[in-house]
Amino acid sequence: MTYADSDFNIKLTHLRDEIDEIDSELVKLLQRRLNITRKVGQLKSAVGKPIFDAEREASLFTKRRLQATEVGLCPDLIEDVLRRLMRDSYASQDKSGYQCVNPASQTIVVIGGKGQLGAVFVDLFRRSGYQVDIIEEADWPHSETILAKASVVIVAVPISFTSAIIQRLNNLPVDCILADVTSIKESPLAAMKEVHAGPVVGLHPMFGPDVTGLIKQTIISCEGRYPERYQWLLDQFQVWGAKIYPVTAHKHDQAMSMVQVMRHFSTIAYGYHLMNEEVDIEKLVAMSSPIYRLELVMVGRLFAQNPSLYADIIFANKDNITMMRRYAYRFLSLLDDVNLDRKEAFINRFNEVSQWFGDYADDFLKESKSMLLKANELKK
Amino acid sequence: MTYADSDFNIKLTHLRDEIDEIDSELVKLLQRRLNITRKVGQLKSAVGKPIFDAEREASLFTKRRLQATEVGLCPDLIEDVLRRLMRDSYASQDKSGYQCVNPASQTIVVIGGKGQLGAVFVDLFRRSGYQVDIIEEADWPHSETILAKASVVIVAVPISFTSAIIQRLNNLPVDCILADVTSIKESPLAAMKEVHAGPVVGLHPMFGPDVTGLIKQTIISCEGRYPERYQWLLDQFQVWGAKIYPVTAHKHDQAMSMVQVMRHFSTIAYGYHLMNEEVDIEKLVAMSSPIYRLELVMVGRLFAQNPSLYADIIFANKDNITMMRRYAYRFLSLLDDVNLDRKEAFINRFNEVSQWFGDYADDFLKESKSMLLKANELKK
Repeated sequence: MTYADSDFNIKLTHLRDEIDEIDSELVKLLQRRLNITRKVGQLKSAVGKPIFDAEREASLFTKRRLQATEVGLCPDLIEDVLRRLMRDSYASQDKSGYQCVNPASQTIVVIGGKGQLGAVFVDLFRRSGYQVDIIEEADWPHSETILAKASVVIVAVPISFTSAIIQRLNNLPVDCILADVTSIKESPLAAMKEVHAGPVVGLHPMFGPDVTGLIKQTIISCEGRYPERYQWLLDQFQVWGAKIYPVTAHKHDQAMSMVQVMRHFSTIAYGYHLMNEEVDIEKLVAMSSPIYRLELVMVGRLFAQNPSLYADIIFANKDNITMMRRYAYRFLSLLDDVNLDRKEAFINRFNEVSQWFGDYADDFLKESKSMLLKANELKK
Repeated sequence: MTYADSDFNIKLTHLRDEIDEIDSELVKLLQRRLNITRKVGQLKSAVGKPIFDAEREASLFTKRRLQATEVGLCPDLIEDVLRRLMRDSYASQDKSGYQCVNPASQTIVVIGGKGQLGAVFVDLFRRSGYQVDIIEEADWPHSETILAKASVVIVAVPISFTSAIIQRLNNLPVDCILADVTSIKESPLAAMKEVHAGPVVGLHPMFGPDVTGLIKQTIISCEGRYPERYQWLLDQFQVWGAKIYPVTAHKHDQAMSMVQVMRHFSTIAYGYHLMNEEVDIEKLVAMSSPIYRLELVMVGRLFAQNPSLYADIIFANKDNITMMRRYAYRFLSLLDDVNLDRKEAFINRFNEVSQWFGDYADDFLKESKSMLLKANELKK
């Protein structure tokens, strides 16, 4: 080791020790913060105030961004760190339980409550002080007693069973709220209205089973019957932090055919194509820039999941076949532009789409950039 | 205001003040940390050590995760926060300049150095102490003098001009390194080898022009001629933090036809489809779960960018037309499964692809989950 080397090492070790000291202080500070936000959670849930407060969040960012700028720190840095802290603080505040919006309610029955999504609702209702009963396949023989004292029945079974299960619910208490959480809405809503004369609402929770809480998550609600009588249920969802998005069942199904059926299907086709082209997946991953990696991630993630889930959604929407066929033809027609060297025509079509996206294109580009920075951070 | 209300407000205000105090301490702590990491950067760049040290990063995470667990804090929380801090600390360390690997080198000439990607290299070379000259369209009349004293010439022009520009480089000093940064590699590499008898290398930087530095970014290198004579250039890229991925030009182009041409093209077709189906984009966004939103973001982001960029890449790869046509046919053949209600066949094909993805499917699912949590954090 030369003199210069040893001098460098001494200096580096000294600086690294200082960093370690700061990081240790950081852990202590974050722990202190979590203790206090926990108290805020308890205080709020005692009086039934929502945990997420958009105004407070915004003012908190503004103050710290300002301070950061003053001391020469990047304001985005402190906002990103605070957002990350808040994610955990929301999750821990969730643990302290929720206000019960309707303490007079009788039992909440979740059919399929041991399924992934059903279990999320069972857990949230219980932590809000409701009596919850679950009906699974084996429980149908004694379902009559369970359903007789239900204030709410939520159908949370796989989409291929939904309609058969709804048929069995023809003897609910007249005041009972009947709801489903299927990812299509028109047909289950019609079936529920036919089988039950009381309040009916179609729900589509826009999140997966691994949410830690509902803060900032969306639940789509499609009006069935007597909305004023199921309003308290939507209020309860809002206490959990969810945003309610009301829309007609028809509009919902239209949007979902794009966002869900079409997108899933073309992603499956893309994976199928990669396999058939005998692509070297390892090389592909190694050669991917952050953006390509993210795109590969979005394809590959699907194939780690249950195929029946996707097949059920796709096969339950036969109306979408012609729409999806149109996609393939549009794909081939754009490909003709390439084949016939019509670059200008291709660019014109591109520009049309850009205009159609409007401001969303720029917003999405910005959003994707911060996602990519995050993706790069995660690299080893 | 009731007594209970006022009591709640007093308590809440008190707790919020405590949070604000902690957050203010947090800003100060992060600023102290940045000051020290800046010193590390200066120390390292003075002796030419790379700024990114995977081992140190890993040991730093291990220590803090342990401490976090001890005090009841989520270890992922502290790791996420530290990763975010390191992103900024890497960026700030970059600013202090880089070691010059080859001080004996004469001029580095970047053709198209005022373009987006070219400018990244110009800036990095200059901050490493090299003499850099730029040739743009208007500079060709006096290019001979510029090129006569070049140690490296990098062609960084749009793909549609690359081959014409390379043709002009038939009089370089025999020891000069000739390189290009085009996103296809076979044809430019062949052209460079034909026009120049000295060292030649094909490069494909796997990042966009808005990188803040090259730490954790990949540069693909395709061997042309005399690799031992351009090795110092690759070393310089590594000093900047980049990872070099060597591969043959043929394998590169094969992978890129998938990752780049096919993916871009099908995304453009997807956007074109959305427009033609007269989708209500506002409703679509509002009804999107985090995962659908991310997928929409990945489509929409493309349309905020220059269409020529994409058209150039797609039209320069006519060999890929039949491959892309095969995608459309596979899409239609899978759609037949849906149309003819062959659910089992569809699921079998899905499972085949899952097996083909192997461990990547699970890894990608995990990765996408942490990306989605991040996406939800960003919501207002």
